[in-house]
Amino acid sequence: MAEKNLQVLLASRPTGWPSESNFRIVEADVPECGPGEVLIRNHWLSLDPYMRGRMNAGKSYAAPVEIGAVMTGGTVGEVLESKHPRFKAGQYVVGRLGWQLFALSSGEDISVVDPKLVPLSAYLGAVGMPGATAWSGLLEYCQPRAGETVVVSAASGAVGSIVGQLAKMQGCRAVGIAGGPAKCAYVVDELGFDACVDYKAGRLHDDLRTACPDGIDCYFENVGGVTMDTVFRLLNPFSRVALCGLISEYNATEPQAFTMMRAVLVNRVRVQGFIVSDRMDLYQRAIARLGPLVAAGRIRYRETVTEGLRNAPGAFIGMLRGENFGKQLVKLA
Amino acid sequence: MAEKNLQVLLASRPTGWPSESNFRIVEADVPECGPGEVLIRNHWLSLDPYMRGRMNAGKSYAAPVEIGAVMTGGTVGEVLESKHPRFKAGQYVVGRLGWQLFALSSGEDISVVDPKLVPLSAYLGAVGMPGATAWSGLLEYCQPRAGETVVVSAASGAVGSIVGQLAKMQGCRAVGIAGGPAKCAYVVDELGFDACVDYKAGRLHDDLRTACPDGIDCYFENVGGVTMDTVFRLLNPFSRVALCGLISEYNATEPQAFTMMRAVLVNRVRVQGFIVSDRMDLYQRAIARLGPLVAAGRIRYRETVTEGLRNAPGAFIGMLRGENFGKQLVKLA
Repeated sequence: MAEKNLQVLLASRPTGWPSESNFRIVEADVPECGPGEVLIRNHWLSLDPYMRGRMNAGKSYAAPVEIGAVMTGGTVGEVLESKHPRFKAGQYVVGRLGWQLFALSSGEDISVVDPKLVPLSAYLGAVGMPGATAWSGLLEYCQPRAGETVVVSAASGAVGSIVGQLAKMQGCRAVGIAGGPAKCAYVVDELGFDACVDYKAGRLHDDLRTACPDGIDCYFENVGGVTMDTVFRLLNPFSRVALCGLISEYNATEPQAFTMMRAVLVNRVRVQGFIVSDRMDLYQRAIARLGPLVAAGRIRYRETVTEGLRNAPGAFIGMLRGENFGKQLVKLA
Repeated sequence: MAEKNLQVLLASRPTGWPSESNFRIVEADVPECGPGEVLIRNHWLSLDPYMRGRMNAGKSYAAPVEIGAVMTGGTVGEVLESKHPRFKAGQYVVGRLGWQLFALSSGEDISVVDPKLVPLSAYLGAVGMPGATAWSGLLEYCQPRAGETVVVSAASGAVGSIVGQLAKMQGCRAVGIAGGPAKCAYVVDELGFDACVDYKAGRLHDDLRTACPDGIDCYFENVGGVTMDTVFRLLNPFSRVALCGLISEYNATEPQAFTMMRAVLVNRVRVQGFIVSDRMDLYQRAIARLGPLVAAGRIRYRETVTEGLRNAPGAFIGMLRGENFGKQLVKLA
């Protein structure tokens, strides 16, 4: 093929906030499809907060990206050529093929998706890892009961938006926390949350208390920091916290102080850290449920689309700053 | 009766560390036993860290003690007179009759105990609330599996000592944290823990890492503060924390900072705050199992006995400072 591959490599490890200089964009040949392999042209790349952790050398739940290696990331694309019995050219597959235009797969890390059920990009969002994260965290770890109050931070984001909509389906009061009036209006008016508190307004505790007149029974945590402390002050006895992310802390060079452990004791709170990929049984069940709900319009989502792989580093840094609105994607084809 | 009752009242609410001036000791008439009532002569009073919380006005899991009211507390004593069909004079009962020599009960808050099975005082310790706390927290919330490493803080105390012995019975490696070489020697030599780390030696992280070569799978937390932060640095993936107490923080006037929430996320830790009295089913089961184990000498315990109710406030303050060794009791008769 005359076409060249384009790849984003990890050039260096950031200290604190990443910059574009931590990435290097290179051209490469499109790889040859060998026996048992599948060659894929990626159409969409997902940008997610967890990637910041992979840029560090330290121990985390997954191995770090090596310096000089292609950045890790979820993708959806088209099979160009297959020498694998389970795949054929023209199929669309979701997988973790990284920040690049073309990739080979052994077939073990990709799944065929149906572009007629929902738009391809949804397999990286509401019907993908973020959707499964919302589903697992809420239903498995928060276990909300009808009538309870569920709070979720980063409520307009890829995960948070699904959490609140699922909470509504469970008969709960859904309250979001988001940054700015536009995101809050979207969360209430488009997604159907009962309320959304703008943390940038500077009255988080008072506004949350008003939005949660019966206290908080379930908290789906995506951000950490001051937001986490504030929500824990309003937790009810026997409440459950699903600890999914701490995006406000990922670029901090000092550990963040949490001062509400006493509330965990006094209110007999359960806090569960989780990673969606630990429970592939739940992941598969979530995707199977979310597909039809999204197809039927019962679960809605929003995307921020950045055009072109060369713009991925900038879009990623912007997402860490909260500049995206809904699921952050990079359109590759 | 010519004999007088003696009572310890809450005189004022402490700010930070309590002092003896927060208590007032008064004489009163021995109450008259009315219809349906039971008159009890307390033999033993239990002193427990949770009582510090009851001295505060603020919201906690139980109502605060009112100013001028008798301090709350677990007791074991003898029935002097009964006008209740389920009790008769000469029986021994455990209950929550407070810091006083004589008390009336409606019969709902007392249970008959057998002084021939274990010594009376054990019904306030290994076969009482502390034992049930250890049993519930370890088996219900930590859920240790054979071969795992269980760490417990305040390991020589009324709760911690039972936690480690139960962990050994479950086939686990039991590692204690205690203050000073005498307590640590007791924990290993008398209670049979595999190791005990002296937090006062100033090398908690390194010593714990040495004592836990395979990391920590279960942590039973009694103390909080720096100890909690340090243990969380060594938690394994999918570890479980039973949050039972935060004694190092009870007298702090500022909230304590916990800096390891990121470890909860990365290692998918479950943290469960709990109060033993929330689950009376577990409480009763624990007592039923612990009685024979203590009677058979398979579970051992140690007591610090203070003589006389007038010395209870001083003993209580000493316990908060860690001056006791094992279960802190006051002998009343």
